[in-house]
Amino acid sequence: MNKRFYLDYNASAPLAKSFAMALWEGKVPDANASSIHRSGRNVAKRIAEVNSYLYRLFNLSEKEYEILFHSGASEAAATFLDLGADVLLVYFETDHACALEQVRKHKENGGRALAIEVQSDGSIDLERAVMQINQKAEGAAKVLLHFTWMNNETGVVFDLSIAESIKEKTGCLVYVDAVQSVGKVSHFLQLNSKLDVFTYSGHKFGALRGIGFSFYKRSFDLKPLIRGGGQQRGIRSGTLNSQGIVSLEYALIETVAEYSKSKELETFKSEIESLLSENENIHLFGNKSNNTICFVHKKLKADVMLIHFDLAGLDVSSGSACSSGSVEPSRVIKAMGYEELALNSIRISLGFSNLSNKEAILDRLTLVMSKL
Amino acid sequence: MNKRFYLDYNASAPLAKSFAMALWEGKVPDANASSIHRSGRNVAKRIAEVNSYLYRLFNLSEKEYEILFHSGASEAAATFLDLGADVLLVYFETDHACALEQVRKHKENGGRALAIEVQSDGSIDLERAVMQINQKAEGAAKVLLHFTWMNNETGVVFDLSIAESIKEKTGCLVYVDAVQSVGKVSHFLQLNSKLDVFTYSGHKFGALRGIGFSFYKRSFDLKPLIRGGGQQRGIRSGTLNSQGIVSLEYALIETVAEYSKSKELETFKSEIESLLSENENIHLFGNKSNNTICFVHKKLKADVMLIHFDLAGLDVSSGSACSSGSVEPSRVIKAMGYEELALNSIRISLGFSNLSNKEAILDRLTLVMSKL
Repeated sequence: MNKRFYLDYNASAPLAKSFAMALWEGKVPDANASSIHRSGRNVAKRIAEVNSYLYRLFNLSEKEYEILFHSGASEAAATFLDLGADVLLVYFETDHACALEQVRKHKENGGRALAIEVQSDGSIDLERAVMQINQKAEGAAKVLLHFTWMNNETGVVFDLSIAESIKEKTGCLVYVDAVQSVGKVSHFLQLNSKLDVFTYSGHKFGALRGIGFSFYKRSFDLKPLIRGGGQQRGIRSGTLNSQGIVSLEYALIETVAEYSKSKELETFKSEIESLLSENENIHLFGNKSNNTICFVHKKLKADVMLIHFDLAGLDVSSGSACSSGSVEPSRVIKAMGYEELALNSIRISLGFSNLSNKEAILDRLTLVMSKL
Repeated sequence: MNKRFYLDYNASAPLAKSFAMALWEGKVPDANASSIHRSGRNVAKRIAEVNSYLYRLFNLSEKEYEILFHSGASEAAATFLDLGADVLLVYFETDHACALEQVRKHKENGGRALAIEVQSDGSIDLERAVMQINQKAEGAAKVLLHFTWMNNETGVVFDLSIAESIKEKTGCLVYVDAVQSVGKVSHFLQLNSKLDVFTYSGHKFGALRGIGFSFYKRSFDLKPLIRGGGQQRGIRSGTLNSQGIVSLEYALIETVAEYSKSKELETFKSEIESLLSENENIHLFGNKSNNTICFVHKKLKADVMLIHFDLAGLDVSSGSACSSGSVEPSRVIKAMGYEELALNSIRISLGFSNLSNKEAILDRLTLVMSKL
């Protein structure tokens, strides 16, 4: 069991090898993008190339959307969800902590918020949600919906058409947490240009940590969270993270190439699910992602199960990995109605590189299952 | 002139080669530091090692100070300078834009601020400053002084003992912008434990862009700017930038080793200054840094001079590099009383790697000087 297998891609993906090589070979230009000398201009030019690449790749128009580079999704949430106390903030109970914490701050500042309930399969009652939003929106200057495309913990995917429907029927602005979508949901490159913001975090698909980006409609009115030298139209000051930005391109090129193996990944996921479902104590949550398997054990807590996975050389997660490094009851599993099993959830999240070790991974999972 | 020489280290330093190699060789652990599986724990352990290294290197005690990792100095300013409207914010006219923009925000929110005037050599009248602070502090809950150790544009160094004096005589909290200090000012590793916060930005000394860190006193009361998963004691959420954090260590190890050549760098700086001062139209600003040469030309604007430097294959800067990529009047030069020459300033900022090309750089500078 010397070699470990990493099955926690929703927490973080390994750095794209092509980028590490480019960095080592000196192919990533190294200066301050704001400097007006040759080296600075080269960096600015390289960043402009990545900008164009992102518009092309995600099928959005530069006329309609701006791109903002930031340190990741938590910073993006703090930037885009802070529109003032007269805004009604709508979110799903299963959203990521960075959305929920922004909601908490919004309420502290006297703002109103509305939580959309999710059902036991992670889905929502669209009609009811629309009605609730329209009721609660009375008197609010704007409504902003925080919409998670793919849930990091359960792999539940909400089609963007749901957000579009809600927008049509309530007139809300829509912020899409697209962090988990890359390489994991179908049509992840086809963004819906009815929606207002799409946020990405580089380390979830093999870019450097500490870099993220958002597309946002030019009409979207936002105020700077980080002020200073006036970079990025004054919306986000600070020396541009040129290495991080370039790493986005390398990582996306790798991911798009690997995505041709998406069907193979889905098959592998199904094989694992079949194996798990042989255990009658395990309840699997279904989802439309190609990589995420989430389950609860009716009798065993996650920390006990994790020991078995760990000994078998498999890196898996108990629910979300975004917290303190200890096993806490999963808020998402609770929200889906499994209150009493919220300490018993495990997430396996695959990456394309796992496809080279399918048999070995299945063998080890079989071993783990024999103990649960 | 094919090979260019980079003389803009105050804007950004090239990435430490040892880090790029470590990344390429897979020596930088690759997972989410919050994950509790083996790979995650390895990352957390590596980050803890960097933490210990930073305390040891900068001679601060873990008992007294916390370390906060962030995306850089602009984020740090937004985090540490936002203490509420009842705080008197004191700053120097020559401080970095990220401090000045925080002051502007503070005033917009109804807070009071006091600008300390600088003299034509960049220094301050300490006694007068203390008197002004004590006068203006009446009725304020706290006084927070923003103190720049080394000015990025002029290289002017204020000893930390000045900040300590001001603190002693006014009881203020002191935030030190230590961004430019690394490898450039004497005793940069000997921090003054009377002071409250020290902020660093990795890319100024060869770490990755997008990573910075601050030491802050455990008693310093701050509120989170970026909320979410609760990482870093809830003060700064978001997946820890493990690659950035590890790059800090590699870059600092390289810088500390290179610092043994500090005297040689100072000599090189003096040689350049001698060369420049042969031109009677050039006014040099003196400073105690070992790497920064800042001057104004009495007749030529920076954009004209920059063309000559550029053609000679020398990357130098016109004043601060933190703005829009265009030449604007230098606020810092203005504050020093050279209002009418604020468009005429050039900054040469050396790095240790320039020492291998001393003769070639001097030759090219001689060529440039023949045109000015």
